[in-house]
Amino acid sequence: MKLLQDHELSDAARGVFDDIRTTRKTDFVNNFWRALAHDPAELKRVWENAKGTMGAGALDPLTKELIYIAVSVANNCEYCIRSHGAAARAKGLSDAQFMEMMAVIALASKTNRLAIGLQVPVDEVFKS
Amino acid sequence: MKLLQDHELSDAARGVFDDIRTTRKTDFVNNFWRALAHDPAELKRVWENAKGTMGAGALDPLTKELIYIAVSVANNCEYCIRSHGAAARAKGLSDAQFMEMMAVIALASKTNRLAIGLQVPVDEVFKS
Amino acid sequence: MKLLQDHELSDAARGVFDDIRTTRKTDFVNNFWRALAHDPAELKRVWENAKGTMGAGALDPLTKELIYIAVSVANNCEYCIRSHGAAARAKGLSDAQFMEMMAVIALASKTNRLAIGLQVPVDEVFKS
Amino acid sequence: MKLLQDHELSDAARGVFDDIRTTRKTDFVNNFWRALAHDPAELKRVWENAKGTMGAGALDPLTKELIYIAVSVANNCEYCIRSHGAAARAKGLSDAQFMEMMAVIALASKTNRLAIGLQVPVDEVFKS
Amino acid sequence: MKLLQDHELSDAARGVFDDIRTTRKTDFVNNFWRALAHDPAELKRVWENAKGTMGAGALDPLTKELIYIAVSVANNCEYCIRSHGAAARAKGLSDAQFMEMMAVIALASKTNRLAIGLQVPVDEVFKS
Amino acid sequence: MKLLQDHELSDAARGVFDDIRTTRKTDFVNNFWRALAHDPAELKRVWENAKGTMGAGALDPLTKELIYIAVSVANNCEYCIRSHGAAARAKGLSDAQFMEMMAVIALASKTNRLAIGLQVPVDEVFKS
Repeated sequence: MKLLQDHELSDAARGVFDDIRTTRKTDFVNNFWRALAHDPAELKRVWENAKGTMGAGALDPLTKELIYIAVSVANNCEYCIRSHGAAARAKGLSDAQFMEMMAVIALASKTNRLAIGLQVPVDEVFKS
Repeated sequence: MKLLQDHELSDAARGVFDDIRTTRKTDFVNNFWRALAHDPAELKRVWENAKGTMGAGALDPLTKELIYIAVSVANNCEYCIRSHGAAARAKGLSDAQFMEMMAVIALASKTNRLAIGLQVPVDEVFKS
Repeated sequence: MKLLQDHELSDAARGVFDDIRTTRKTDFVNNFWRALAHDPAELKRVWENAKGTMGAGALDPLTKELIYIAVSVANNCEYCIRSHGAAARAKGLSDAQFMEMMAVIALASKTNRLAIGLQVPVDEVFKS
Repeated sequence: MKLLQDHELSDAARGVFDDIRTTRKTDFVNNFWRALAHDPAELKRVWENAKGTMGAGALDPLTKELIYIAVSVANNCEYCIRSHGAAARAKGLSDAQFMEMMAVIALASKTNRLAIGLQVPVDEVFKS
Repeated sequence: MKLLQDHELSDAARGVFDDIRTTRKTDFVNNFWRALAHDPAELKRVWENAKGTMGAGALDPLTKELIYIAVSVANNCEYCIRSHGAAARAKGLSDAQFMEMMAVIALASKTNRLAIGLQVPVDEVFKS
Repeated sequence: MKLLQDHELSDAARGVFDDIRTTRKTDFVNNFWRALAHDPAELKRVWENAKGTMGAGALDPLTKELIYIAVSVANNCEYCIRSHGAAARAKGLSDAQFMEMMAVIALASKTNRLAIGLQVPVDEVFKS
């Protein structure tokens, strides 16, 4: 699907774009939303989900970005790795923290496969 | 591969188990290491990788557990979700934090697929 | 593996290409088959599998394309998303249907991870 | 996370359960929602997403179930395969249609890997 | 789908079961084929694919089993890991070889994620 | 993360690069290590893991490359497919062997999904 420019948006999509701009305090709207704008109902759902989930709560916003990036690396989504990599840096992620995150992702990817390949049974103590 | 009991360990594997027990300050060694003990060289590598990677550094140990669990959910590793879920709780993860982590994993899983399915091109601003 | 041009095909591969052209009523043979032509036995198997599976049966051909694309998005196969996206459009898929398909894929990707991450036990009523 | 029984629900979660029961015209609420009920905001988001996405639109509800199941098989989610397999049967899916869906999923899983393994370049004609 | 017993097979499925028994020189037919027997055309396709692909060729049968198992571990298919683990052992796989295979799978799982997470560009020398 | 050139390496990273060059008997160090060099401890771990795992043992080095590539195709890692494809060819992999490997990967990808989609229970005989 082609990326929609501002003048091609439906009224419903434009309303979401307005909220993205207001919330993020920038006029820039990235390509993800411009592709999703073909389905204004889904655009609104995804944006409100992101806004409600990624802000401060029991976990801080930077920790949430790291979780998000870890999933994106596991799912091999270049767009998501790059866009949320930029978001994490904007929230203060250092190079050293980024590399440590990658080392944890790499370790988990390795041990996940060992546990699956060796069909290790879950210890009783971990079941409750 | 069957799980090795303490009296079945090679000397090399026993040395790793000793270090696991000393480092973790408990006599309990979970099934993952008992399956891996059939290959003492790999056992040693994985344990030293885990010990070197999961401790405090530029990121704190609990944040690292969350990254680890996020990857394990994306890879569908029940053993890893349950064992590191227990580890995260031992490091202070609350129910509210666990559920927030799950909401971020769920959001990323959704937006990853939208970006891939819509073949969204990476914005120039995210490329550097 | 390089893409094989028509004059580079073995006799066995040429026979499959002839059937692709006859069945699809076009002289165009896309790159997938040109890469696979290095292994004529596999080329024949895959083509006959595709021909036997994707046509009308208990499900109609367009529904089958949607199932095919959903798997390709989950597997992150750009080639498959683009080539079968084109096939689905040729069979009548509208923009609105495409976006609805994407919304279902996105929802499933999200709820799949929640069910796995929360380790939800299967209800008895779903087991039979 | 343990499954919440009706008397353990927060008011917000109870409101969602009421809507699930009303919409589905049954008192039965399956385990997925009982696990998710620990996070009423996410529970509400996921339920409203499901209600808004899986109903009739440009695609019919049974076709949407097939897309959902295809993703769940690709993601290896037993809970989702079984619960939406039941939903699809309730919407009229026959055994023959189920087996045809599986054959398409299997074909796509095979050709996805061939396209990725052979690194087949996308044909120009599929790029627009 | 329930597993079909011998007396429940269609004639077409029975013919495939006969060939499985003759080829494998055993009366035992494992559950995979009994589930697939609901779709005799797909049963025949998959069996002939397996028979044609897993035998001796440019690669020996044991090496092919290792490749098959590696994919099954990456895809998290317990049935496939266990059934082809048994097949590999019947073809001579030793415990030491099994553990070395697992170490290679684990290494690749780790380095795959590092290459993806770090978005490492392919070296020119690897592109031809 | 940008790729580090030789003059930008820390002393610890330079030591690993020296060992890569000595072990491989070439001055060429590919991009993977240049990206990982931002974290010298992880660089050293990954290199020593690769050196210790991929050499001759109970399995020969070419068989190990095939296992590595199979995992990389399943994980959709272009960098890994291309770099280890080159390594496998350098160790003697023929075109016919490469295509047979791909056919096994494709078969496993298909049967993995059938076993998961049909939820085939593991035969008792495969459980011990």
